[in-house]
Amino acid sequence: MRIVVDAMGSDNYPGPDVAGAVMAAREWDIGIVLVGDEAAIKQELEKHNTHGLRIDVVHASQSIGMTDKPTESAKDKPDSSMHVGMRLVQTGEADAFATAGNTGAVLAIATLYTLKRIRGVKRPALTAIVPHLAGSVVAADIGANADCKPEFLAQFAIMAHLYVRRVMGIELPRVALLSNGEEEGKGNQLIKDTIPLMGKLTGINYIGNVEPKEALRGETDIVIHDGFTGNIFIKSVEAAASLVSGLLKEEITSGIVSSIGGLLTKPAFSRASKRVDPFEIGGAPLLGVDGVVIIGHGRSNDVAIKNAVRQAKLAVEGEIIAAIRDGIAEARS
Amino acid sequence: MRIVVDAMGSDNYPGPDVAGAVMAAREWDIGIVLVGDEAAIKQELEKHNTHGLRIDVVHASQSIGMTDKPTESAKDKPDSSMHVGMRLVQTGEADAFATAGNTGAVLAIATLYTLKRIRGVKRPALTAIVPHLAGSVVAADIGANADCKPEFLAQFAIMAHLYVRRVMGIELPRVALLSNGEEEGKGNQLIKDTIPLMGKLTGINYIGNVEPKEALRGETDIVIHDGFTGNIFIKSVEAAASLVSGLLKEEITSGIVSSIGGLLTKPAFSRASKRVDPFEIGGAPLLGVDGVVIIGHGRSNDVAIKNAVRQAKLAVEGEIIAAIRDGIAEARS
Repeated sequence: MRIVVDAMGSDNYPGPDVAGAVMAAREWDIGIVLVGDEAAIKQELEKHNTHGLRIDVVHASQSIGMTDKPTESAKDKPDSSMHVGMRLVQTGEADAFATAGNTGAVLAIATLYTLKRIRGVKRPALTAIVPHLAGSVVAADIGANADCKPEFLAQFAIMAHLYVRRVMGIELPRVALLSNGEEEGKGNQLIKDTIPLMGKLTGINYIGNVEPKEALRGETDIVIHDGFTGNIFIKSVEAAASLVSGLLKEEITSGIVSSIGGLLTKPAFSRASKRVDPFEIGGAPLLGVDGVVIIGHGRSNDVAIKNAVRQAKLAVEGEIIAAIRDGIAEARS
Repeated sequence: MRIVVDAMGSDNYPGPDVAGAVMAAREWDIGIVLVGDEAAIKQELEKHNTHGLRIDVVHASQSIGMTDKPTESAKDKPDSSMHVGMRLVQTGEADAFATAGNTGAVLAIATLYTLKRIRGVKRPALTAIVPHLAGSVVAADIGANADCKPEFLAQFAIMAHLYVRRVMGIELPRVALLSNGEEEGKGNQLIKDTIPLMGKLTGINYIGNVEPKEALRGETDIVIHDGFTGNIFIKSVEAAASLVSGLLKEEITSGIVSSIGGLLTKPAFSRASKRVDPFEIGGAPLLGVDGVVIIGHGRSNDVAIKNAVRQAKLAVEGEIIAAIRDGIAEARS
């Protein structure tokens, strides 16, 4: 297996990207292709012991930054590390592409310029794997499509179902729509129009509507929403988690006794933080394009990059692309 | 000033509702009208020292529960404590109505059967006052209107602006739309169509789009969204906050050292929790109906009810209804 890692992806590229790729090559004995500025990558590789590892470097003369406009840079930088990396997957020279780069650019380059959509897929879906107390929930779409039609949501459900089944190993994952209430009659027009379609999907364990709290409590394996709502959902969860921990830090460090308590509880805080650390997951797939693409957070460190490669490896092993191709074709017939 | 308190509102009615009303009558020397089952209210009142307080009881033969369907109960229980209470405001016998009851029923009864909308208001907005590290943000709509038109959002902005200015005392509150990104071009179709309208509102300090993290960081005083998105936003924040504190509790109590640390940090946790406790705020207004209506959480305790009455008092003192009537008329002309 050969997995392409975008060396120019993370906020602090190419350090974490290269380091994480080296860790992945060593840990799983897989082939890694680092794409990006060849000189910079080689300089970075010299910091690591890469003896016996299968690491190739492929040069890309351009790179896309976090503040670059997605559609413009996708069009104007045809030799970016993202273009080059995804083309390697497109031509079969590699099996998957992992990046911590500009999500909008990945989406545009994958959909419009390189891999393209799997036949029959109306819209690709960005996903997130959201950790909670009892495991995690896969959320789709979290931002590829701000406005959706009911058929898009039904396809997101099929793709996420196949992903969770084949990659995360849950035989019959529970699928729910995110809504403003579980009761009948709740939901906006999109949700109301999607419900009948969900009921018709064969082989999908559609359990109805959930609110954010149920989604974060392990009451579903998959939560489906349009990209606007999903983005608000994910970002609200991140913002609130950061608010609560900021508030606790402020109060704990405000007195001597509580500061001592803070020292004693530090390992507990670290364990808690690790349990919901997105870096432990590494990244999540862009579903619906014709090749495995894993997108990690811009703030990714080396461990996060390594784990993003792990997600890519699992998706390749689960043959997710073939599964989605068959699943979408079947649903359309 | 006379404020009506729904004695049958909270999950544990009438105990917290009556106790909170008594506290409010004593603290601010205002008139309170308790509506609901007269015998039950009087029995509850006997537990308190009400000497010298201006507390009246008005009987209502029906009450609406949390699981009752809003529109059905609004129609079928015309003598509910909510109907009776809001009619007292409608006829001028009282100045405001506060309840911790079924939000959907309050909305239906206010809009369709009693107070009705202020002339020119297209849709009423449910609001929340969301506490954060640097103060609070007023969110509207959080669930009255799952599907909105751009004009609705613009009116929510006007009403929330007037509320924050006149009741919370911020001369020129910052108003933002909640979106999936701050940059131009972000947003779903509703947001894109609302932006031009926001720019045309005179006297409103529209600062653009914000993401959840900015809204929770004090970068705006008001955040505007359709009721579906707003509901997901608010509930995601609540769910994530509860997830983080649950996780910390689990980890802190998992070992002896961290448990001791937990004891030492307990006051810090309490202070943190109090700073973002919705009960300290008590409730938030239903904006756009022709009378002051404050809705608190079903789980309200006596302190929360007292604070909901405080919100009602502040809204009456701020003459918010007259301000919205004038503001909406002006915007339409």
